Amino acid sequence: MADTVEMIEEDEGLPKNLVAAVIDAVQLGDAGTIDALLDPLHPADIADLFEQIDERDRAALLHLRKGGMDGDILSELGDDLREEVINALEPTELAEAVRDLESDDVVDLVEDLDEEHQWQVLDALEAGDRVAVEKALAYPEESAGRLMQVEVVCAPSHWTVGEAIDYLRASDDLPEHFYHVILVDPRVKPVGYVALGRLLGTSRDVPLTELIEESFRTFRVDQDEEDVAYAFNQYHLISAPVVDEDDRLVGVITIDDAMIVLDDEHDEDILRLAGVDAESSLTDKVIATTKRRFPWLAVNLVTAIFASLVIAMFEDTIATLVALAVLMPIVASMGGNAGTQSLTVAVRSIATKDLTGANVWRVIRREVLVGLVNGMVFAIVMGLIGWVWFGQPMLGVVIALAMVINMVVAGLAGTGIPVVLEKMGVDPALASGAFVTTVTDVVGFFAFLGLAAVMLL
Amino acid sequence: MADTVEMIEEDEGLPKNLVAAVIDAVQLGDAGTIDALLDPLHPADIADLFEQIDERDRAALLHLRKGGMDGDILSELGDDLREEVINALEPTELAEAVRDLESDDVVDLVEDLDEEHQWQVLDALEAGDRVAVEKALAYPEESAGRLMQVEVVCAPSHWTVGEAIDYLRASDDLPEHFYHVILVDPRVKPVGYVALGRLLGTSRDVPLTELIEESFRTFRVDQDEEDVAYAFNQYHLISAPVVDEDDRLVGVITIDDAMIVLDDEHDEDILRLAGVDAESSLTDKVIATTKRRFPWLAVNLVTAIFASLVIAMFEDTIATLVALAVLMPIVASMGGNAGTQSLTVAVRSIATKDLTGANVWRVIRREVLVGLVNGMVFAIVMGLIGWVWFGQPMLGVVIALAMVINMVVAGLAGTGIPVVLEKMGVDPALASGAFVTTVTDVVGFFAFLGLAAVMLL
Repeated sequence: MADTVEMIEEDEGLPKNLVAAVIDAVQLGDAGTIDALLDPLHPADIADLFEQIDERDRAALLHLRKGGMDGDILSELGDDLREEVINALEPTELAEAVRDLESDDVVDLVEDLDEEHQWQVLDALEAGDRVAVEKALAYPEESAGRLMQVEVVCAPSHWTVGEAIDYLRASDDLPEHFYHVILVDPRVKPVGYVALGRLLGTSRDVPLTELIEESFRTFRVDQDEEDVAYAFNQYHLISAPVVDEDDRLVGVITIDDAMIVLDDEHDEDILRLAGVDAESSLTDKVIATTKRRFPWLAVNLVTAIFASLVIAMFEDTIATLVALAVLMPIVASMGGNAGTQSLTVAVRSIATKDLTGANVWRVIRREVLVGLVNGMVFAIVMGLIGWVWFGQPMLGVVIALAMVINMVVAGLAGTGIPVVLEKMGVDPALASGAFVTTVTDVVGFFAFLGLAAVMLL
Repeated sequence: MADTVEMIEEDEGLPKNLVAAVIDAVQLGDAGTIDALLDPLHPADIADLFEQIDERDRAALLHLRKGGMDGDILSELGDDLREEVINALEPTELAEAVRDLESDDVVDLVEDLDEEHQWQVLDALEAGDRVAVEKALAYPEESAGRLMQVEVVCAPSHWTVGEAIDYLRASDDLPEHFYHVILVDPRVKPVGYVALGRLLGTSRDVPLTELIEESFRTFRVDQDEEDVAYAFNQYHLISAPVVDEDDRLVGVITIDDAMIVLDDEHDEDILRLAGVDAESSLTDKVIATTKRRFPWLAVNLVTAIFASLVIAMFEDTIATLVALAVLMPIVASMGGNAGTQSLTVAVRSIATKDLTGANVWRVIRREVLVGLVNGMVFAIVMGLIGWVWFGQPMLGVVIALAMVINMVVAGLAGTGIPVVLEKMGVDPALASGAFVTTVTDVVGFFAFLGLAAVMLL
């Protein structure tokens, strides 16, 4: 079993010592070893390797292996590094690299480049490909039009299996990957598709229309890529045609593209929940990272000062009983954590369309009850601790009551705030955190210190 | 444009008013309307609808539409609801429902059921299918063996395109979805695969070995499904053969299965980072949810008390200058937020294998510098606020210094702790949060109150 684990770990991702070996070879200027190390790797792994070494080694590596930078590696690089690498390539090398890519990969490659670099890449393409890429770039960012490839395989809907197979055999420029033959009517409107497996397993005289798959659905060229990714995931699609505003077939989206979008959306959610700019990358420099982290910290400073103003209202109370200053962060912290739990569940459920108008009240009711039950359990525990620690039973009662209040509010705010933000068209992952912790801090300090002022002094 | 948006929103996921219409029909006992509303829906949407209505309506709906519960809907339900629905079905209905599913879907359906329900489903299968499912269940949980379907399409590696096509045409039990013909040697070891598109676009006399795709890779039957999902995503795979310990072909994994795993892993990370049990679902009852949320809150209570002990060390200092109690949560809160930012970036980068031994020191250095720069900016802002608010310049200096210290420590702990946990074999998403906020709370309070004790009194 131990051997298996070893093997598995080396099987996926970059082998452990490879990065170190490449850096050694780069520093020795040993182009032969570099080629020997990199040649067996998948372009995605080479791109990862580029991201894991530092800027100087990267420049040297590019220099030593210039001819070997192909388009697939460029496609796999993050935006920042891609620009860095394209800068380092000669125009002819760049032309060489992008020429064999499919149109969707070229679009993905150039859409985030600055204009000068965009022209460099576009000029390197053949005329037909360039028109296709320019057309795609005219669609809105993050739309189906940007995601699709224009290389489609379609057939008139009245054909038989035999006719379709003969047509495919006679074509000499089929796309590298395709999984369906799209059936179109005379106006080139897609009316269904046939999986290649069905085509191969059926006799030649069967009409294609008899083989149309139930999963068939089309996307509009201006539809949001997030919707596309959701539908691929929800309906287990492998590919789907894209149509223009007149319902004419203009391209096809395949699952690998949808999977990348889904992955990005997830990353965006997870980073935004933590107050990190979703465009962040591990290769960002210090200054870029500092700027990206700044806005959330600034928001947090404002909300923290707001909470401090609540504490300042009770300065006299605290001066009389310093134990309050010792215990008050516990109430705020428990509320903050309970609120973050509710909030995260709500944000995820909104993203997966599981939390909707139909069940929102039931979920809010549940979260409030969960806050109440957990609040009461921890109230008893903390009440006893407060009593024993400071020898004042009433101090235990005060912290217990404040804890219950704050955890109920946490359940309410943790679910209610993202739902309201979503209704207002604000990404709940982005803004909920600040609001929820402000609420739990303010309520926590106010309930605890306020109850103390009334009940203890 | 407004019309387009309308259309798009109704196009993906459940139409807005459908849930309400179904609930109305259920309460009227109107089976005809229910069928008319549900029949056009995809099984995944019907499952979502089940999850969005409450338990009583669900039971009534099941009763009114009993015959219509097919296996695809069962497959799409969450674990808890699936058990509830299977409970409500007659054995014959259950048998009917599962009979048409592929082996991997049946495995997914039964693996989380209790034993009694597992037998109910297994007994409903034909003998051959039952053996396949039982075999899959013998593989470890979350392994490639559980994920794969045993229905494979393979061909001897010496065949030509023509032979493969004739064989496929003659087969009458091809899987519903397949994307490659797997080439095997005489020992049934996979040696490559050919995409169906290539098969269709090539003349009959070409040997299959000439069409083998570069992306070919196999998985071991006991390999972790997380590795499988990573490889599908990293290398843009559509399907991949699974082999046993003797390298013999035993099944195939397709991208839709890998996509579900990837989606689950993401959800797990995002929920664990917020201290929510990864098995949580929106349909959990209050008691189940309370229990799932409890452990993290208990951990947080311990760490919060720990931070309070630090404050208690400075009770006399606070008694002398109550302003310290007002300002101290700001230092802890800014550190906590900066730490969470670093932590989330680190946890994501570890999951995507972007943060490795090769670049960990560079990333830690960056995070510390980011903490230093942002810390200095906020130190100046907060120093001035503290001075103006309480009229004591030295109080401003103390909070400024404490802020810088805590934000540098936040960058260090936020990156270092997940890396160390990962090395120790603990999921960094699960445990890092508690450690990092403990560090930033303790350091924040200690630095601020300690500096105040030395510099102000």
